[in-house]
Amino acid sequence: MAVAKTAGAGLAKRKRPARELPQAPADAIQLGDLAEFLGYSLKRAQLRIFDDFIGCVAPLQLTPAQFSVLMLVETNPGRNQTEIASTLGILRPNFVALLDELESRDLCVRVRSSNDRRSHILRLTEKGRAVLVRARKLIETRHEARLKELLGAENRELLLAMLGKIAREF
Amino acid sequence: MAVAKTAGAGLAKRKRPARELPQAPADAIQLGDLAEFLGYSLKRAQLRIFDDFIGCVAPLQLTPAQFSVLMLVETNPGRNQTEIASTLGILRPNFVALLDELESRDLCVRVRSSNDRRSHILRLTEKGRAVLVRARKLIETRHEARLKELLGAENRELLLAMLGKIAREF
Repeated sequence: MAVAKTAGAGLAKRKRPARELPQAPADAIQLGDLAEFLGYSLKRAQLRIFDDFIGCVAPLQLTPAQFSVLMLVETNPGRNQTEIASTLGILRPNFVALLDELESRDLCVRVRSSNDRRSHILRLTEKGRAVLVRARKLIETRHEARLKELLGAENRELLLAMLGKIAREF
Repeated sequence: MAVAKTAGAGLAKRKRPARELPQAPADAIQLGDLAEFLGYSLKRAQLRIFDDFIGCVAPLQLTPAQFSVLMLVETNPGRNQTEIASTLGILRPNFVALLDELESRDLCVRVRSSNDRRSHILRLTEKGRAVLVRARKLIETRHEARLKELLGAENRELLLAMLGKIAREF
């Protein structure tokens, strides 16, 4: 399939000129075959993207996981803690700590369910909704906009499609 | 750029028929706009890939981070602990724990550097080299081969190129 090859070439062409021949010092550590493993490359890209995300929303002090929870609670009001945690793949002890933090900052509340007294419904507070609006604006106009610029809009869509395919079907 | 779109269409076409119209239960949690954020999709794909990686090398009991360290030490014999850790972006306390584990399993040794008594050179043991050969074979023939089948070889290359671009240039 020559198509993807051409898209790849287009991607390479958009590299900043200064990076085209990286002047690695002679004694730099060689990645060798490690760079060919998808897991390694995914993790490195994910760490870089999370760093940038955290920097972009620094005025609001939100981690990517906290942002995901606020987004999901807003989209799914009235759902319980276990449903949100399992959708995001966050382990229970980590999720409890995360909610404690969001609740202490008045961004989200846990309300005991009237159907099942053992389960907790999650709701955004007024402040939580306002913080989420600001966070989305910062992320969309800075973080995601720069990613789109780096990759190109169509390659960004292709990347999203491939990542979704891996998460759902691999 | 119509090129990437065509590649994307090719990708969609390879979806398993059963997944084309996912029968989500009516009360399933909706991801909503969250699925459009690259950071979220990257993290989900990375978690899935790490899970599969761990399953593939289960007979050898290696985590992705341990595998990366063994790979890097083999490619760069005689380099010190700090250089390997910083190349992989692993924090010092985590790296020390990881090396303790590899050393206790006789896969890797720390040798005090003759040039700088405070630094430790890393070397694979005989057993470490043998385990790495077996691990690479398992990962290449199972994990990476199935990823290539899922995405297509050329889309896999394009994915690697985009992830590398993000890690280096974003």
